[in-house]
Amino acid sequence: MSVTAPKGFVASGVHCGIRKKARRDLAIVRSLERATGAGMFTINRVQAAPVVVCKEHLAAAQPQAVVVNSGNANAATGANGIAHARATAATAAQMLGVSADEILVLSTGVIGEPLPIGNVLNGVTAAALQLSRSGGGAAAEAIMTTDTYAKEAVAHGSGFTVGGMAKGSGMIHPRMATMLAVVTTDYPLEPGEAFDFLAPAVDASFNAISVDGECSTNDTVVLLANGASGIERTPESDLQFAACVRKVCGELAKQIVADGEGVTVVAEISVRGAATEPQARAIAERVATSPLVKTALHGHDANWGRIAAAAGSAKFDGGFADLDPDLLSIVIDRVPVFVDGAPTGDEPELANGSCAIDIDLALGDGAATYLTTDLSYDYVKINAEYRT
Amino acid sequence: MSVTAPKGFVASGVHCGIRKKARRDLAIVRSLERATGAGMFTINRVQAAPVVVCKEHLAAAQPQAVVVNSGNANAATGANGIAHARATAATAAQMLGVSADEILVLSTGVIGEPLPIGNVLNGVTAAALQLSRSGGGAAAEAIMTTDTYAKEAVAHGSGFTVGGMAKGSGMIHPRMATMLAVVTTDYPLEPGEAFDFLAPAVDASFNAISVDGECSTNDTVVLLANGASGIERTPESDLQFAACVRKVCGELAKQIVADGEGVTVVAEISVRGAATEPQARAIAERVATSPLVKTALHGHDANWGRIAAAAGSAKFDGGFADLDPDLLSIVIDRVPVFVDGAPTGDEPELANGSCAIDIDLALGDGAATYLTTDLSYDYVKINAEYRT
Repeated sequence: MSVTAPKGFVASGVHCGIRKKARRDLAIVRSLERATGAGMFTINRVQAAPVVVCKEHLAAAQPQAVVVNSGNANAATGANGIAHARATAATAAQMLGVSADEILVLSTGVIGEPLPIGNVLNGVTAAALQLSRSGGGAAAEAIMTTDTYAKEAVAHGSGFTVGGMAKGSGMIHPRMATMLAVVTTDYPLEPGEAFDFLAPAVDASFNAISVDGECSTNDTVVLLANGASGIERTPESDLQFAACVRKVCGELAKQIVADGEGVTVVAEISVRGAATEPQARAIAERVATSPLVKTALHGHDANWGRIAAAAGSAKFDGGFADLDPDLLSIVIDRVPVFVDGAPTGDEPELANGSCAIDIDLALGDGAATYLTTDLSYDYVKINAEYRT
Repeated sequence: MSVTAPKGFVASGVHCGIRKKARRDLAIVRSLERATGAGMFTINRVQAAPVVVCKEHLAAAQPQAVVVNSGNANAATGANGIAHARATAATAAQMLGVSADEILVLSTGVIGEPLPIGNVLNGVTAAALQLSRSGGGAAAEAIMTTDTYAKEAVAHGSGFTVGGMAKGSGMIHPRMATMLAVVTTDYPLEPGEAFDFLAPAVDASFNAISVDGECSTNDTVVLLANGASGIERTPESDLQFAACVRKVCGELAKQIVADGEGVTVVAEISVRGAATEPQARAIAERVATSPLVKTALHGHDANWGRIAAAAGSAKFDGGFADLDPDLLSIVIDRVPVFVDGAPTGDEPELANGSCAIDIDLALGDGAATYLTTDLSYDYVKINAEYRT
């Protein structure tokens, strides 16, 4: 259900032949009532054609539907790629009776190969005809790439619902990389408000996970709100809605991390006591993306020396984030391993599944959390394989 | 020979038992004439005890000798670690008849375990008694950790010599990480000048290589100059000396990269046309440390899409380095794969050994070069293994 759990949304997922295997590769999510919306996009300087087109459309109109294809990222495809993304939106608009700039287009898959536009346009036509209230599952399936299961989440507020689907990034096939998420809600929002609710939720979820530290050309998160719940807004309901968006984004982000191929450990890095919150984040991200920390996690080695070394080299503001080694403390799975700059001699045995790494800098109030994974043989294998 | 190739230097390498295996683990390099010198150190906020002590000593005196141990990094060892580093310097000073602050102490090996100070002090005594003109090779051996061969380089100017030894970083055993280098010369320098010659050479060599993107707690490069060549300095000889230091540092850096365990490809990333030189460097470093680029190299996959995506996400000055995808061109092993923002359809077959990646941003005059390696199964294996 996911994206069709809120009232007034329909979805579908079809196989149109972008992918050779007979599996769904194109999805549409549509609001049946006038929606408002927002998108957040990769900050990579190399942006895929659909990202460029989405930004144009969001600047011009409120989004009413989203078309997502897997199997081809339509990235690094030049002017042809832009034309293909526009043609996809135009065809969807015609089928759905809205204007082209009310359509958002998302793509994921191989970079640098032309989008098979004939298949895509046939797929859009077919998917538009299959839109239904029960199509959320098919849509979530259609956007999967190397994901081993469809990623869906739903949160219920008092009289309204937030739903979402996502596909993972990292642990990805050659030339594939993207995190995509579509979040829907029947909560009523005014035009322009969607971004204010989406941005903090994305920051605390999709922007606080790392599998391999890469930032793709296609990463996109979209929120559509159609007000079909019919509820009256209050300051309290707004808070509840914000919490629901955060919950859906958080659950999708956790599923993305846990589903990385070859992942045996999901580690939560918590930093506190940093000079500022941005510095806490820089340190958490540095530890979360350190190959030495991640290979140690794979070996179930509570290697706090590597954690300290990574924390001490977190780039921030042209230098490194503030860290006084004599004040630094590290706790792994509740066992203090390094306290006030000195090793304790204790170390936990790491188990399969999860690991909690707490880093206290004792400098200020800055805190941040980051989810990461181990770096496995399989990551290298999957990403080193020749394209076939 | 290496560090003892220049006149007036002696060295030795002994086994003192820091390492269990019967192999050399402690080295001394000493100038027989009054030397001047400089050191460059890790910028990690977590600095090993020997780094702290070296900085103190360089602020107080000109270095006359260097003690290096492998097998234990004396890092994250608190106040005891500082005391151990000072004791090492004091013992060496006594044996060599200089003052303690004229001794530099370098350590590499396990982080977070106490230095076996008894072994170290016995080793210093033994090594001091074995110093000789032919001891350069034994010293280079004694500083090896997972290196498969000793790293040495010599460059000859007109009437003077520069020699150097180094040990590698990256592809390293659990809790081991460090790049150490000692460079010696009989060229005459005034106190304070050594840094001016060392810094640009280190920037173009040790600071432009990456195996795993980690910045250790112990990285140190030291230059000692004793003037024993007796030559007269001229502006021309200064230029020649600078070139010799650059050559020795460059050769040592290349050996470090090529000797990474499991490395099958050494790639040279050349960026030009960047807005500025620091931006070129940020982009080259980002591509050189991208796990997706490095795993593609391991698979001998000329995956320019990943190169473009990495280049587009190079952090710089609080944002990303300037890059216009429509002006971007990428050439791999002389085959243009992406020109002015569009794929050419051509791709080279990557061979074992080396790979040249040229990235042209067509924005300005900024250029930079970076050496990197593939990310291999062995990297994960070595770094995931339980400590034994």
